[in-house]
Amino acid sequence: MTRLVELALEEDLGRGDITTLAVIPKGLQARARVVAREELVVAGLHLFEQVVKRVDPAVEVTLEVDEGDMTELGVALISLRGSAASILTAERTGLNFLQRLSGIATITRRYVERISGTRSRVTDTRKTLPGYRVLEKYAVRMGGGTNHRFDLGSGVLIKDNHIAVAGGVAKAVRRAREAAPHGMKIEVDVDDLVGLDAALDAEADVILLDNFSLDDIAEAVERVRRQAPAVVIEVSGGVRLDTIEAIASLGVDIISVGALTHSAPAVDIALDLQLDV
Amino acid sequence: MTRLVELALEEDLGRGDITTLAVIPKGLQARARVVAREELVVAGLHLFEQVVKRVDPAVEVTLEVDEGDMTELGVALISLRGSAASILTAERTGLNFLQRLSGIATITRRYVERISGTRSRVTDTRKTLPGYRVLEKYAVRMGGGTNHRFDLGSGVLIKDNHIAVAGGVAKAVRRAREAAPHGMKIEVDVDDLVGLDAALDAEADVILLDNFSLDDIAEAVERVRRQAPAVVIEVSGGVRLDTIEAIASLGVDIISVGALTHSAPAVDIALDLQLDV
Amino acid sequence: MTRLVELALEEDLGRGDITTLAVIPKGLQARARVVAREELVVAGLHLFEQVVKRVDPAVEVTLEVDEGDMTELGVALISLRGSAASILTAERTGLNFLQRLSGIATITRRYVERISGTRSRVTDTRKTLPGYRVLEKYAVRMGGGTNHRFDLGSGVLIKDNHIAVAGGVAKAVRRAREAAPHGMKIEVDVDDLVGLDAALDAEADVILLDNFSLDDIAEAVERVRRQAPAVVIEVSGGVRLDTIEAIASLGVDIISVGALTHSAPAVDIALDLQLDV
Amino acid sequence: MTRLVELALEEDLGRGDITTLAVIPKGLQARARVVAREELVVAGLHLFEQVVKRVDPAVEVTLEVDEGDMTELGVALISLRGSAASILTAERTGLNFLQRLSGIATITRRYVERISGTRSRVTDTRKTLPGYRVLEKYAVRMGGGTNHRFDLGSGVLIKDNHIAVAGGVAKAVRRAREAAPHGMKIEVDVDDLVGLDAALDAEADVILLDNFSLDDIAEAVERVRRQAPAVVIEVSGGVRLDTIEAIASLGVDIISVGALTHSAPAVDIALDLQLDV
Amino acid sequence: MTRLVELALEEDLGRGDITTLAVIPKGLQARARVVAREELVVAGLHLFEQVVKRVDPAVEVTLEVDEGDMTELGVALISLRGSAASILTAERTGLNFLQRLSGIATITRRYVERISGTRSRVTDTRKTLPGYRVLEKYAVRMGGGTNHRFDLGSGVLIKDNHIAVAGGVAKAVRRAREAAPHGMKIEVDVDDLVGLDAALDAEADVILLDNFSLDDIAEAVERVRRQAPAVVIEVSGGVRLDTIEAIASLGVDIISVGALTHSAPAVDIALDLQLDV
Amino acid sequence: MTRLVELALEEDLGRGDITTLAVIPKGLQARARVVAREELVVAGLHLFEQVVKRVDPAVEVTLEVDEGDMTELGVALISLRGSAASILTAERTGLNFLQRLSGIATITRRYVERISGTRSRVTDTRKTLPGYRVLEKYAVRMGGGTNHRFDLGSGVLIKDNHIAVAGGVAKAVRRAREAAPHGMKIEVDVDDLVGLDAALDAEADVILLDNFSLDDIAEAVERVRRQAPAVVIEVSGGVRLDTIEAIASLGVDIISVGALTHSAPAVDIALDLQLDV
Repeated sequence: MTRLVELALEEDLGRGDITTLAVIPKGLQARARVVAREELVVAGLHLFEQVVKRVDPAVEVTLEVDEGDMTELGVALISLRGSAASILTAERTGLNFLQRLSGIATITRRYVERISGTRSRVTDTRKTLPGYRVLEKYAVRMGGGTNHRFDLGSGVLIKDNHIAVAGGVAKAVRRAREAAPHGMKIEVDVDDLVGLDAALDAEADVILLDNFSLDDIAEAVERVRRQAPAVVIEVSGGVRLDTIEAIASLGVDIISVGALTHSAPAVDIALDLQLDV
Repeated sequence: MTRLVELALEEDLGRGDITTLAVIPKGLQARARVVAREELVVAGLHLFEQVVKRVDPAVEVTLEVDEGDMTELGVALISLRGSAASILTAERTGLNFLQRLSGIATITRRYVERISGTRSRVTDTRKTLPGYRVLEKYAVRMGGGTNHRFDLGSGVLIKDNHIAVAGGVAKAVRRAREAAPHGMKIEVDVDDLVGLDAALDAEADVILLDNFSLDDIAEAVERVRRQAPAVVIEVSGGVRLDTIEAIASLGVDIISVGALTHSAPAVDIALDLQLDV
Repeated sequence: MTRLVELALEEDLGRGDITTLAVIPKGLQARARVVAREELVVAGLHLFEQVVKRVDPAVEVTLEVDEGDMTELGVALISLRGSAASILTAERTGLNFLQRLSGIATITRRYVERISGTRSRVTDTRKTLPGYRVLEKYAVRMGGGTNHRFDLGSGVLIKDNHIAVAGGVAKAVRRAREAAPHGMKIEVDVDDLVGLDAALDAEADVILLDNFSLDDIAEAVERVRRQAPAVVIEVSGGVRLDTIEAIASLGVDIISVGALTHSAPAVDIALDLQLDV
Repeated sequence: MTRLVELALEEDLGRGDITTLAVIPKGLQARARVVAREELVVAGLHLFEQVVKRVDPAVEVTLEVDEGDMTELGVALISLRGSAASILTAERTGLNFLQRLSGIATITRRYVERISGTRSRVTDTRKTLPGYRVLEKYAVRMGGGTNHRFDLGSGVLIKDNHIAVAGGVAKAVRRAREAAPHGMKIEVDVDDLVGLDAALDAEADVILLDNFSLDDIAEAVERVRRQAPAVVIEVSGGVRLDTIEAIASLGVDIISVGALTHSAPAVDIALDLQLDV
Repeated sequence: MTRLVELALEEDLGRGDITTLAVIPKGLQARARVVAREELVVAGLHLFEQVVKRVDPAVEVTLEVDEGDMTELGVALISLRGSAASILTAERTGLNFLQRLSGIATITRRYVERISGTRSRVTDTRKTLPGYRVLEKYAVRMGGGTNHRFDLGSGVLIKDNHIAVAGGVAKAVRRAREAAPHGMKIEVDVDDLVGLDAALDAEADVILLDNFSLDDIAEAVERVRRQAPAVVIEVSGGVRLDTIEAIASLGVDIISVGALTHSAPAVDIALDLQLDV
Repeated sequence: MTRLVELALEEDLGRGDITTLAVIPKGLQARARVVAREELVVAGLHLFEQVVKRVDPAVEVTLEVDEGDMTELGVALISLRGSAASILTAERTGLNFLQRLSGIATITRRYVERISGTRSRVTDTRKTLPGYRVLEKYAVRMGGGTNHRFDLGSGVLIKDNHIAVAGGVAKAVRRAREAAPHGMKIEVDVDDLVGLDAALDAEADVILLDNFSLDDIAEAVERVRRQAPAVVIEVSGGVRLDTIEAIASLGVDIISVGALTHSAPAVDIALDLQLDV
């Protein structure tokens, strides 16, 4: 977190803010409010605060809502009081973080709401912006989603290429179980029902149904629940807001959605400044 | 650039790739192709290459297209040859960069095409993801756009708060001109036609029409061209693909679009691996 | 890895090697051999190579054994050829890495050999030297051990304090299962047989018998195998070379040993230099 | 120091503490004590404090003993009060530092005590863990030892290879004296009494008797004291707790011991947490 | 700024201050004053403060003058109160910053004073010490000068090689105007009056007269003012304290002086310490 | 070294070279020569090379002279061949390093030449630019000088404040000798002949005559040579080119000169580019 804040400030402020330096008197005080300009789920308030404090530790920052709150248009998320110059200088960098992370939380919430009441949960993927994984996965949680494995070292996911090389799914699962930390489940990605049966025979702990049709998902769920009820079923591949409900209704455990992170649009948040006079 | 690649690899691979280590024999060779799965404008090939080379300098990487090329669905962007394990390990991080930057280049190209033949050019803003400004502004150029000021230290942009504090736009412009490097033009952001007239009187070099209606833009262009033909006219604020053409037709010089960077969805790009047998 | 090599060279060579600069002519060539001065398991050859190459990329480095090999006293691990000054300058830093990591691999191998043929495997802990976790866990694998969770974010381990706060092990396990990535097993640390029964009732996936007597381990194994045969049993707490065999004979799955990393003595490795004349 | 603390926290906590996040309520307060579980010499309290403060600046940390103190089993070294979650999260990383540095201080103290009352002092070597030299040499001082040269740039030590290349010890000493800062003594490493005489003739300031027998040390001390009483005599090579006394009794000035740093076992220190109820 | 302070402290104090540690009791308190030992313009007080605070946050630091103040010999710039050891340890690093930056501010002031009352302003160049550009350009401003472009990315300056390659100054200017952010003026470096005329025809915004004689400057100013009164005229090349007045009297806008940064001698500043007794 | 090169390139090129990108075709090849424009001693060629290679590894760099060479006006120091754009982009940063370090080497050489044939040697101080100590001390050696202690941790220098606190020079020397590594000489700074006598009595190894008059230096040398011939005599304080000869003639060992580093003007070096046509 800290490294990105430093990168960001260096990037935008490393050479100073020429306009503010030239125009705004040093001592001038102001109040400001960071305001939602659309309905959104908040994530990243602490990053905004960290940006402001790095620019000027004397600015008072009050968080007006909690992380994960859903807010209406017009709601103040943060109040600021302090040097007008400092606030103007920090504004863009702070908003850039807040708008991105709240964007992810907001879209995640929409997916989560669609399937509330089912046994399924919405999960992210590793399709995150390089350097932002910790932050983006945090935003997904703020939106009510859960996280998939953090990185290549914190989970096992055996895909078709791994299986081809290993000489079959049974061998691949066995090798992974021998080598991986004993706290990790072994997950196998399957492309069709034949692959599913092989994964079940290989005693995979989690099975990922990759780009399955709704009919095949239904069939897969039935086979798994009958043959190995402890196995976790994940669905992935092109899941959209208008398709997730149908998938969840089939009784899968996990629905993972790359778009939560790779294509979340920024939400609209602005800073309103009021000079102390 | 290099620091983000390091952050990204550390993030995804810092603890190794458990699955690949367990399952893929070290010496196994493969070929792979990075393929566009939709029509897109390419940006970020060199980042993909850098990621692969950091994982394993022995993998051969051939760039099959040029940065900025528009490609069809199915076109191979990059060919790879080398260790299967290395390619699988680098895949996700490389694609995460490439899909984001090509996403920005692709959406930029759409805006640019809409106004080709007019005197207007499409420009980005400072609404970039913290840490990614150099890369995102590069992607905008690959899409045919041009860049606004890089940071707060490389351009002057006087906004309403600056003007209020300075005691009028004339004073703000004068102070900025005295303090800024002599190679910078002085840009003033105006909210209405009254502000425009004041900015013209203050001898601003560039005037930004902020959230103007089409009618007001038309009126503003006429006043500027008549009174100060050397002044550059920029339009900003909620510009969309379906509104940019009308704006450009009014003869403005610059149309800046925050969505080029803050809300560009990732484009779909995949890696197909073929084992050497 | 790279950051530690840089830290290390900066630390020892940042201000140059005064003796070598003063005494050794720049062009003088030499051969050298890195030799085991006791029986040991090798880990860290690539770090030695990296150190030498950072000091002088022109020195030829040949690895004479493989990582994980057990070697006799007197065996050459690495051969070097190139500038005498460069080799002498890199010597100590390279050896410091190699002696530490091979020390860990060597002691791990001794534990592993004691229990070969049983169903138990030897595992490390998080008691690693800060900054060295990736390297020390790698050395454990080279010695034939397996790794426990890498960090606090890649595994769940519920201890007594967690249970007390949560209001019982059942609640703690349930909360963890809801929040953790679906690929992680839920491990519970228990101090006695009462705790064991509670953990079984709570449907923990892995149970850690913490500082149990041999009798209690035997009883615990019996209860687990009867009641929940899929549960993984781990033993930890003061395990020594002379006690591990008895523990393994009771049929546990995992025996974790902090001393593999926190108290492994360096093994004796030296560099013999021969000037080219 | 700071860089290692950052490396360490990133390594263990970079992705959060899943168990604590899931199970421990945010606001829950606790007290905790860091307790010696064996007799030891304390070193590294400030690193423990730094780790805790980086995790949560609001935790109160009270150091109950001084660096360099010898403590009994059961003595509290540090008291903590604050968020239970923060304390549990920081625990392992803080202890890893403290157990390592106190381990070095403790073993150093044992060597120092063996030769108290003699003119000899116990000194470390450059056989430290890469990246830890400042900390390990500090721990040696806390144990009552003194430091050898910090790095290759802060002292001159002419070894056999330097002598061979230079064409004799006299030439090597002369060149070193011309090139080195005038505040550095010139030290020569000798393998036998012939080497000793040559070093004396070359007017070395310090002579290191490398792997000498007790008889040869005795003879060497006599020759040096007679011929060049200002010369400092150092002994090195496989010195152990059970041999150091005999060496010191011969009247040498410095006894350097690689094992102080390269093979010091961690001492046993634990954190006891008590929830505020 | 912060990174250089860290580099500097690591460089001078990374291994501790042996003399102070050995000789100065930990608790000893002192007062100290940082005093100008010649007439100078102050720049860098905050860096001195930052250095002291990094060494020991408990030392009280009072800045007695303002940045940019001109002070007499004997004036106290900073007062300190706190640990004698900390003050002595921080002294040299803090002074090294302060003497360098005040050196630049002082020499800049001399140039600025020579041409006060004219329309010309004194500007720096990119001939700064690598890593110090932000600080050195800041010091120039404290001395009353203004800054040229910060880096290659924040201004356009077309030189003879660019013109030769582009096939003429007109083409070069046009390409630059198309590619550069719209807020940048296009500056052209010319070697003689022929070049000047070409630059004027090409509609350059700023023209740099490079190593012109006084007569040619006079002629150039006349041509520019007649033909393109909005064009900014810069003079550069071997400007000295004894020549700047004549140049300014010709009516140019900008006089840039490399020596402000590349050859400013340090000014004499000392720290006087008084022990509290 | 590497970190400063990175800082420098980031600083000047982090956002690209707008002019070159706009005007110079990518493929265009050129030759260039780095030429001395005054008589100078060369230092820093490898930094120039490193800068060029970081910008573009494909540019061929040939060093035409050796570090430490004295060259005439007009001599080529480096030849380059490769991309015109790359060479132009790297030019300023490379020259900034080379002009600074050669400036230090050149002024050092002048001091050294003045006293050649005497027993004195010219030494630097810790008055170096923060972050540049390694490089500046290297440049001093290239100019024929020798180095004083590198930092506060690699040498002991007892000054008046240390003595006052310790309760006399004898106590200060004794404490320092007990605490410092045994390879360090103990140096004492004295302000007058009374101090000298005390330092001699305290058995200092090196005595620094601080701001002594020529008469007092002569007297001091006589006393030291008579009473303690092994003691090294250093003179410091406002030494200038026109005073050093007189000081050296009195038979001191070391003359240290702060101006070698804190006030060395840059030497004039330029890059001449020739396009391949």
